[in-house]
Amino acid sequence: MGFSRYNSSHSTAPSAPELPLESYVHQQHQPPPPPPPPQQQNQYQSYYGHPPPEPAPPRPSSSYVQSGGFPAGTRSDVVRAFQMVDKDGSGFIDEHELQQALSSGYQRFNLRTIRLLMFLFKNPYDSHRIGPVEFAALWSCLGYWRAIFERFDKDRSGRIDLMELRDALYSLGYAVPPPVFQLLISKYENGSGKAELDFDSFVECGMIVKGLTDKFKEKDKRYTGSATFSYDSFLCMVIPFLVSYD
Amino acid sequence: MGFSRYNSSHSTAPSAPELPLESYVHQQHQPPPPPPPPQQQNQYQSYYGHPPPEPAPPRPSSSYVQSGGFPAGTRSDVVRAFQMVDKDGSGFIDEHELQQALSSGYQRFNLRTIRLLMFLFKNPYDSHRIGPVEFAALWSCLGYWRAIFERFDKDRSGRIDLMELRDALYSLGYAVPPPVFQLLISKYENGSGKAELDFDSFVECGMIVKGLTDKFKEKDKRYTGSATFSYDSFLCMVIPFLVSYD
Repeated sequence: MGFSRYNSSHSTAPSAPELPLESYVHQQHQPPPPPPPPQQQNQYQSYYGHPPPEPAPPRPSSSYVQSGGFPAGTRSDVVRAFQMVDKDGSGFIDEHELQQALSSGYQRFNLRTIRLLMFLFKNPYDSHRIGPVEFAALWSCLGYWRAIFERFDKDRSGRIDLMELRDALYSLGYAVPPPVFQLLISKYENGSGKAELDFDSFVECGMIVKGLTDKFKEKDKRYTGSATFSYDSFLCMVIPFLVSYD
Repeated sequence: MGFSRYNSSHSTAPSAPELPLESYVHQQHQPPPPPPPPQQQNQYQSYYGHPPPEPAPPRPSSSYVQSGGFPAGTRSDVVRAFQMVDKDGSGFIDEHELQQALSSGYQRFNLRTIRLLMFLFKNPYDSHRIGPVEFAALWSCLGYWRAIFERFDKDRSGRIDLMELRDALYSLGYAVPPPVFQLLISKYENGSGKAELDFDSFVECGMIVKGLTDKFKEKDKRYTGSATFSYDSFLCMVIPFLVSYD
């Protein structure tokens, strides 16, 4: 995470999370390092050469796979949520089953959000289903995002406004440049240019940024802030987002 | 159009359109030149240095704007289709009105396809509405695409299969490389890997390719086949597709 950051002029720059994140993040995902103080950054300054640590994607190996294909240490409610919907015991669940499984710990996400999550967390060799390892990673990531969301939803209304969204994305390690942010929120705005996002929309919005940033980073391994694509690789990178976003 | 072409090994390489395209294409859009014979091309060979002519987007000017803001020579049924849905006479129509207006000449497109069309043809200064100039260009473009579609829909079933889709896109000037094509059609395939597309899906599919290719070309003005993006410009380019594709 944390590919690019910028120092916005607003005075509510986020600091280290205040909520007990440990209750959400206990597995593979570590919280990103707190952003450096604004005065040390220029606008659009990136972590060139100093990319923040990216949690390694969990991979099954005999040393840490427990019964059922879950990484050792996976919480029992996560295992239960998966197994409850995997009725045929195949070890894989589809998008509708994922929607149902996440309902038990989070909420019933919009199917569009589910497809985006599925696309971003799926095993690269199976595009339509996810297994225990991916499910555990997704559950853990959502827990972290939920903690960030709740931190900015100060009145516990279940919704955050656009300024809070920007700060929340920043806390997740994504400094979304203003023009990009404007595009991103255009779908949530009402006529007066205001909007509030619930957790579902927050996840959708943030996962678009995360997904595209991750893809970009694959082509910008040295963190120069720019990347070169062939026509084919550009199309191959972008089209899955459109297809999964159906 | 016709940014990149490749010589596929199939034997049904399209030749010049057989249908009387003049009845569809009568305004700004010219049919792309017929693809060169396969034996003159390498796989993925592009028109580097010899980009096919791209029809200039119509722009209103006092010399050719007729009453109602339409380019001179616009067919009366096109003007009528627009004015019928522009009930407040503002000279602009929104996505629902566009859906209704196109119904009179083509069909009732899926709202998702309508949003994609709106995004690709809209005036850059008004993201939620289109005016007469853009409407006339869209109508004309759809006429050309319809002619191509019908040429490949040999049995007049209203549907084309995946091989025909590939050839039809090729006729439109888009040689979609096999891996990209696989991604693109994944949403239309049934379990057995087969699919048929109606005109609505054909337009959706083709407009995704056209839109992304046009965006890529903006960054590859010399037709080298590769383009460099900053992180910001990459996000700004891709996110509107996701938002419009809602």
